[in-house]
This record gives sequence, C-alpha cells and structure tokens, in this order.
Amino acid sequence: MYTPKVFEIESKDELFEFIEQWSFGDLVTTSEGELFVNHVPFVIDKEMNKIYGHFAIKNPQLALLEKAADLLVIFKGAYTYISPNWYVSQEMVPTWNFESVQVRGKAKLVSDGKLLTILEQLSEKHERLFENLWSLNNISESKINTMMKMIVGFEIDILTIKGKSKLSQNRSVEDRAGVISGLRAQNASMASIIADKMESGILP
Amino acid sequence: MYTPKVFEIESKDELFEFIEQWSFGDLVTTSEGELFVNHVPFVIDKEMNKIYGHFAIKNPQLALLEKAADLLVIFKGAYTYISPNWYVSQEMVPTWNFESVQVRGKAKLVSDGKLLTILEQLSEKHERLFENLWSLNNISESKINTMMKMIVGFEIDILTIKGKSKLSQNRSVEDRAGVISGLRAQNASMASIIADKMESGILP
Repeated sequence: MYTPKVFEIESKDELFEFIEQWSFGDLVTTSEGELFVNHVPFVIDKEMNKIYGHFAIKNPQLALLEKAADLLVIFKGAYTYISPNWYVSQEMVPTWNFESVQVRGKAKLVSDGKLLTILEQLSEKHERLFENLWSLNNISESKINTMMKMIVGFEIDILTIKGKSKLSQNRSVEDRAGVISGLRAQNASMASIIADKMESGILP
Repeated sequence: MYTPKVFEIESKDELFEFIEQWSFGDLVTTSEGELFVNHVPFVIDKEMNKIYGHFAIKNPQLALLEKAADLLVIFKGAYTYISPNWYVSQEMVPTWNFESVQVRGKAKLVSDGKLLTILEQLSEKHERLFENLWSLNNISESKINTMMKMIVGFEIDILTIKGKSKLSQNRSVEDRAGVISGLRAQNASMASIIADKMESGILP
C-alpha cells in the first residue's frame, strides 16, 4: 500500500486495535501467479503476533493457504469522498480520506482444538453487543462435531503490518475544520466515522 | 472467491450496479509472487466493459499494473455478523452476511485526455450529493496541469466479474425474518443495509 509518511499508522497498539475493530478482513493469496480473495472474520492474538480465521472445507483457497507465494489480509476501515468545496484553501482537488491496515503473513492450518477456541473467541467477540449471548454451549455436541467436519481453522503469523490513516493530516487546521463540517453535514455513517477520527487524538 | 451457487450474483446489470455503488475498490496485483494492494475510487463504463482509476505517480504499484501476472479489484459491500439467536431454527451456528464483487482484468495506462475524463466523471459522480457542485472548471488551467503531472490514469479491461450476495438465501422464510429483526434492532448502518437487501427483490 502506497503510504506517504504523514499517513502512516506507526503504533503497533493502534494497528492491532484497528484490526480488532475492522475484523472482517479480505484474505488475499497468490500462488503460481494467480490471485484468490475471500472475506473472513478474524480474531487476533497480540501476544503471539497472530491472526486466526476459518474456512469452509469446500473453499478452494484452503489448499492454497500454506503454500501461497505471498499472503495479505486487508482490513479496510471507513472511507469517504472529500469535496474541494469544503476547504478554506482555493485551487484544491478532490480526494478520499480512509483508513486501512494490511497484514502480510504466513498461514498454517490449526488443530481441531485450536479451531474450537477460534470459534469461541469469534462468538464471544461478536455476541458482546447483545442481551442474550449465544455461545457454543447452546448447541449439542453432535452439532459441534458435524460443524467441525465442514470447516478448517488457520493461523497467520504476522510478518509485517502496515497501516494508512489518510485524514487530511497534510492540510491546514482551517481546511481540516472545513472537511469535518462537510462530512458532518452528510449525516452518513462512513463520513461520520472519518469525521470522528479526524477530531480524535490522531491528528497533531 | 468461494461462492456456492445460491449466493451467486448472476445478473451483469446487478454486478455493474454494485460496482457503481461500492466504487471505492481495492486494487490487488501479483508480480513475481508478490502482492500489492491499494484503495482506489473507480468509475465504470458498462458499454466498454471497463473500469477506470488513477494513481499518484509515486505509487509503486503503478509500475506493476501493466505487467501484473494477475489483477483483481475487490468491491466489498456491507457485511454483518448473524447471531444464531435470531433464527427460529435450533442448533444453528454464527455466520456473516455480506456482498462482494470481484473483477479480474488486464490494466493499461491511459492518455492524459482520458485521465481528464476519468477525473471529470469521478467528481461528477461524487459531487452529485451536494448543493454546490465542485468541478474541474473551478480550478485554473495551471493547477490542472500541475495535478496531471502528479497522477496517472489507467483502465482495466474486465475479463471476469464475480459477485457473492450472502443474504441467508439458504435459510427458511421464518429464519430470514428473524435475522432481519435482529439486524434492525442493532440500529447500525451496515446491519441496516444488509436487512434492506434481504427484504428487497433479491430473495426468492
């Protein structure tokens, strides 16, 4: 990902936090010059420097995982068009503000025991929002066994992790204030997330 | 992208419409076994079966575009966790509903004249929402010339286009109704988009 210095996310904590928040990633592999991409919910183990996911056993990318020549997982956050009309400065052109983290890594299939842990962590993470929390305890052992035969878990050892946070850091305070107003006026989810980020501590 | 038949978007019109809606894509290339991904706003020419974008001239992926061994553009739409608690059926497990379109293609750099057209189309498309429409006419010719020296336009000839629309089509009407209620109760943007799609004509 082309990332001018001013847009780089440098803090490892921030990168990991971003992955936790935007955890439905895009798993990209290349093998013998061919690309394959699937969308996968991930969990992260910060201590181990690994992310974990699972595939349907019928997913053709499964056979490519361990032997991929290269492997990236894209965690794209919010993105939004920025109109030059919002700046105080004149003679400006359109751009997009957005955030994205990309992990490069090495994949390895995991044991059934580890897969079960991944599934537990995933439901814990995503059920947290609700009143009645679903967990694997809600289904029978025979159902779990059937399910486990249809999916395979994998871990991705993180080799590099890069983040881009393009939030008008290269513009003046006045221009940034104009962008934030323009975004707020849209009353749209992505635009609001970017405006919040622009107002938060990330900017100098 | 692993796509069981029931989740396939078959209509070319629908695929193109999806790209227009989720046009801030992820451009993935592989060259000599290495992956590169950048996030790019696209415009589409349905008649020509092409999509168009542009890069900063400093973007290292620029040199890889035309000679990429493989090239994909991911247009990911909304995605949301589905809790088994929302189904009428018992013994269900978590999943994600989401939509994604992937274009495989061949890239070619375009002339400055074509680049200018791409920029015009992009601002037209994204300014449409606003009251005061910004256009390239708002800036001086010298500014346009400076800008044009810093960016390069490209076209991607679409070789294949695949879409996945995973909206609980493999569940009963009762289970789908439960999912829609669960999504609506979250009052979250992505969840609402998926609920809207589930209620729209896409489902049988």
